[in-house]
Amino acid sequence: MAHWVRFEEAGKISIGKLEQDKIAVCTGDLFGQPTVTGRVVPLDSVKLLTPCEPSKMVCLWNNFHAAAAKSNLKEPEEPLYFLKAQTAFHPTGREIPRPKSYSGRVVFEGELGIVIGRRCAGVSEADASNYVFGYTCVNDVTAFDILNRDPSFAQWTRCKSFDGFGVFGPSIATGLEPDSLVIRTFLNGQERQNYPVSDMFFKPRRLVSLISQDLTLLPGDVISCGTSLGAGSMKPGAKIEIEIEGVGRLSNVMG
Amino acid sequence: MAHWVRFEEAGKISIGKLEQDKIAVCTGDLFGQPTVTGRVVPLDSVKLLTPCEPSKMVCLWNNFHAAAAKSNLKEPEEPLYFLKAQTAFHPTGREIPRPKSYSGRVVFEGELGIVIGRRCAGVSEADASNYVFGYTCVNDVTAFDILNRDPSFAQWTRCKSFDGFGVFGPSIATGLEPDSLVIRTFLNGQERQNYPVSDMFFKPRRLVSLISQDLTLLPGDVISCGTSLGAGSMKPGAKIEIEIEGVGRLSNVMG
Repeated sequence: MAHWVRFEEAGKISIGKLEQDKIAVCTGDLFGQPTVTGRVVPLDSVKLLTPCEPSKMVCLWNNFHAAAAKSNLKEPEEPLYFLKAQTAFHPTGREIPRPKSYSGRVVFEGELGIVIGRRCAGVSEADASNYVFGYTCVNDVTAFDILNRDPSFAQWTRCKSFDGFGVFGPSIATGLEPDSLVIRTFLNGQERQNYPVSDMFFKPRRLVSLISQDLTLLPGDVISCGTSLGAGSMKPGAKIEIEIEGVGRLSNVMG
Repeated sequence: MAHWVRFEEAGKISIGKLEQDKIAVCTGDLFGQPTVTGRVVPLDSVKLLTPCEPSKMVCLWNNFHAAAAKSNLKEPEEPLYFLKAQTAFHPTGREIPRPKSYSGRVVFEGELGIVIGRRCAGVSEADASNYVFGYTCVNDVTAFDILNRDPSFAQWTRCKSFDGFGVFGPSIATGLEPDSLVIRTFLNGQERQNYPVSDMFFKPRRLVSLISQDLTLLPGDVISCGTSLGAGSMKPGAKIEIEIEGVGRLSNVMG
């Protein structure tokens, strides 16, 4: 079990393993054979980046029994997903920018992110774990008023892809059993979401398998598993934290 | 005016300018200051790749008066778009793979692609041309039966993002006036689409401006402007060509 981070220190980007308040600096490809350098830096002396650089982030909708029941949605027959733009990816600790072109509600959605470790196409559910590198926390930020304002076309991609709206990190945790994890979200310190992975329609291994039938997943790609009850608005200055025990706490302030 | 290509020759990837049946090989960044090497190779001695490697492909829906009239769609108040996965990008000349997990209709959609040349956020329509590198042909391939089979969620991303479903090329043409271009599609040599850019609700410069208000566009990113009348099915073995005079002809066989 490890917690992998990517960080910037004096203008140089490195990877490393988080060990309490220190980082054991590593070299090489995170998804290849990274090597420990022996150098250790204090966590508070560096700037954390997104823990990897996905070629794509696949985001689920309607993946929880509890949320579906509340919204009168049927259980979907297949995973329903959209993509977030790369330019939306945003690390822990950095203010989430408020779009200049949109003045409506901006909503947080705390989610579990699956980070792919190996090129993955057409894999079975039984084999899916071999393609998962680890897990991370995701805040699937949404410009909510845009989503359904055109009656002919739900604007999923657009309302989720403003710069800075794909927040994930702080680390990628390896060696975890995903099905027993619990996602919690705190708005200004108050718990707003608390739901288990066990309530998913499509659990992590099944998602990896089913999505990999459609499109090839690459090392570093993230599948964000969708959110459940309790998502809500972030006012300017709000502090928003997504915490998954064993994974970490993703913490940002809304601009 | 130039036609830029990217190609593989003896395992090495290079860029160059197409000059009839030859390529003037260049070095450097296509969106920086590429330099002519003086070396010239025959076009038929190399394998063409996608002319660039977009970080994202933004694809429009309902962007033509004629297509909207036929489908009883209203003129949209804003550009309606989704993203295609990077793993879908596919060059001219290579067979379009038929998905193993889907046996329904596969549809071609001939489109104009705008290729971004400079990092672009919040630009005006008047200034948009300064951020466009050039234009390319796009075949926005679609697993049509998936799109609306879930009544609660249109599966745009999924039906458009199978591996190989984002065909574009063969080159990027610079120095063109986009608003006078005409897109034609040929299925097994027969013309199936023939429509002008002038029929767009949102023309290229306006698209660049409006989309850049939402998300930052990067060099090499592609905006595919949507399709008009005549899109249709590709049976196995069908030859599909998207031609835009002054831009080029994108030619593929459906697997």
